[in-house]
Amino acid sequence: MAPTWQISHLDRSKQSIIQQKIDLKTKPKGSLGQLEDIAAQIALIQNTDRLTINRPMMLVFAGDHGIAEEGVSITSSRVTQQMVLNFLSGGAAINCFCRTNHMAIKIIDAGIKYEILPQPFALINQRIAAGTRNFVHEPAMTQEDCARALELGAQIAKQEIASGSNLLAFGEMGIGNSSAAAAILAAMTKADVEQCVGLGTGITADQLRLKIELVCKGLKRAGEVDALEALRQFGGFEIAQICGAILASAEAKITMLIDGFIVGAAALVAVSLYPAARDYMIFAHQSHETGHQLLLETLRANPLLDLGLHLGEGSGAALAIPLVQSAVSFYNQMASFEGAGVTL
Amino acid sequence: MAPTWQISHLDRSKQSIIQQKIDLKTKPKGSLGQLEDIAAQIALIQNTDRLTINRPMMLVFAGDHGIAEEGVSITSSRVTQQMVLNFLSGGAAINCFCRTNHMAIKIIDAGIKYEILPQPFALINQRIAAGTRNFVHEPAMTQEDCARALELGAQIAKQEIASGSNLLAFGEMGIGNSSAAAAILAAMTKADVEQCVGLGTGITADQLRLKIELVCKGLKRAGEVDALEALRQFGGFEIAQICGAILASAEAKITMLIDGFIVGAAALVAVSLYPAARDYMIFAHQSHETGHQLLLETLRANPLLDLGLHLGEGSGAALAIPLVQSAVSFYNQMASFEGAGVTL
Repeated sequence: MAPTWQISHLDRSKQSIIQQKIDLKTKPKGSLGQLEDIAAQIALIQNTDRLTINRPMMLVFAGDHGIAEEGVSITSSRVTQQMVLNFLSGGAAINCFCRTNHMAIKIIDAGIKYEILPQPFALINQRIAAGTRNFVHEPAMTQEDCARALELGAQIAKQEIASGSNLLAFGEMGIGNSSAAAAILAAMTKADVEQCVGLGTGITADQLRLKIELVCKGLKRAGEVDALEALRQFGGFEIAQICGAILASAEAKITMLIDGFIVGAAALVAVSLYPAARDYMIFAHQSHETGHQLLLETLRANPLLDLGLHLGEGSGAALAIPLVQSAVSFYNQMASFEGAGVTL
Repeated sequence: MAPTWQISHLDRSKQSIIQQKIDLKTKPKGSLGQLEDIAAQIALIQNTDRLTINRPMMLVFAGDHGIAEEGVSITSSRVTQQMVLNFLSGGAAINCFCRTNHMAIKIIDAGIKYEILPQPFALINQRIAAGTRNFVHEPAMTQEDCARALELGAQIAKQEIASGSNLLAFGEMGIGNSSAAAAILAAMTKADVEQCVGLGTGITADQLRLKIELVCKGLKRAGEVDALEALRQFGGFEIAQICGAILASAEAKITMLIDGFIVGAAALVAVSLYPAARDYMIFAHQSHETGHQLLLETLRANPLLDLGLHLGEGSGAALAIPLVQSAVSFYNQMASFEGAGVTL
């Protein structure tokens, strides 16, 4: 059904050489903490002595969710469209952070409910449909739509890689998508639904109870599912396209910067399908969304930032890119003890 | 004895206007977490609608410590000189991070043991003496030297501010300076010495025991001390100059980015002398040094990063500057709900 990818684990034969190079830098061993892990990971990914971050690209996928009609969000699907327009005019948080951190950004309509017409020039049209179906009552997507979403996500990732990007980050917008991500997480980890469902962008306690109840209903309806089926049953078109983009990036051996809860759910599906995809992922941040910690633990991820963000859009990833660049710069540029005449 | 400063608390009369401006941005309330606090703080500091980070400057102060002769560090005072040369040739971690994050950097000899001769052009000579005395047996500095160090630190901060910098960050280098910082922290908080003394850049368990014992001896010798006397008894010339630079920056109402444990000790002295100085400080990171958490708690600080760093040099501050710039950019550039036609 879905396309298949050739994704291989990193060749770790050079790991000790890389670690030695890091340990010979003019600093106490291990003193750059997580940045050392990031540098070593990118050195393994790029398999070269001189690391580069070329044309770092933020791909923001937008899609709407049938479950939004249940009132599990702070607002309605109309806001997905409004925020896409805000992205296109450069006024959202993700635009500010990408500008500040010199990251290119592209916006993809993966299937928002209210199409923007006439089609804005800068909006990439990868619409599958006008939003998914309500997963409480039926699968969010058909098998065909799910496969098509994976393909289209992969396609744009491949295009950007072909255009010279060797680091991709993903962002998302879609009213209702924290419900979708929570359902995917619960289905795949079999954890208590209460552990997976959170306040999203800030719902009330009553809405949270409703959200938990509806996710439970959806899970019960769908029954036992594997990763791909979880994506189809509960996912959004933006989540599926991100999952496709992740798989294509892993196939191309490209570093990925994984944002928060929603993008993390796409990453979880990708890693369940192809465990080797995990090797190419850097996790940007820990958000305050309830399920995010469980998700990160499931992926054995140690994120870079913990700033109390709960915005989405890819904002955590856009904020983390300078840390990745700093890891690359110390790996490339820092003097060795011998070179600098330091006798630590 | 020491010079006095005119440091006033921030005028908080516009706090609710600032918060309203943040809350009207196209994002759920509070969803940018700590970045919202940083933006609000800088808005109060700069007292203007359009925030700027101009010519962000990293001042790295180097000094040596008499206590280093006791073997409480992983290496000898010779390495302070070697690392200063490494800073000057651009090969240290702090150079890499400043380059990556577009931050200017200056290196100050505040009193290293082995003077670099002939005097390198790029090294700013603010030498008080060839290292401090061993605080186990006698005060680290004379009253005159301590006052002079504060003055010189203030002087260079004022120069950089006059040259257009409106954000200063401070870094340090000095074998033995985590012992000095630990003693200052213990003297000022009266906490258990074990809570204040850590592994520095990576000493052994035996060295840690010795370090604790020596800090205890120094504290006992000095007896009850106030903040300024703690600085004189235990501090280094680099710590005292940073303290002076902090006070001058606070007087000039300039945003400061406070690095880790050593710079934090200077900040603690500054805030004890002038509590209002705290208003101008942003805390860059939580390091793994034992006393750092206590120090941050004492200063009611919520640092931006927690990357397991334990390097010093100002590295945490240089890594945090893009987050500060991102806070400024969302405050300046993000659209409002009304402006963007978003109906959240």
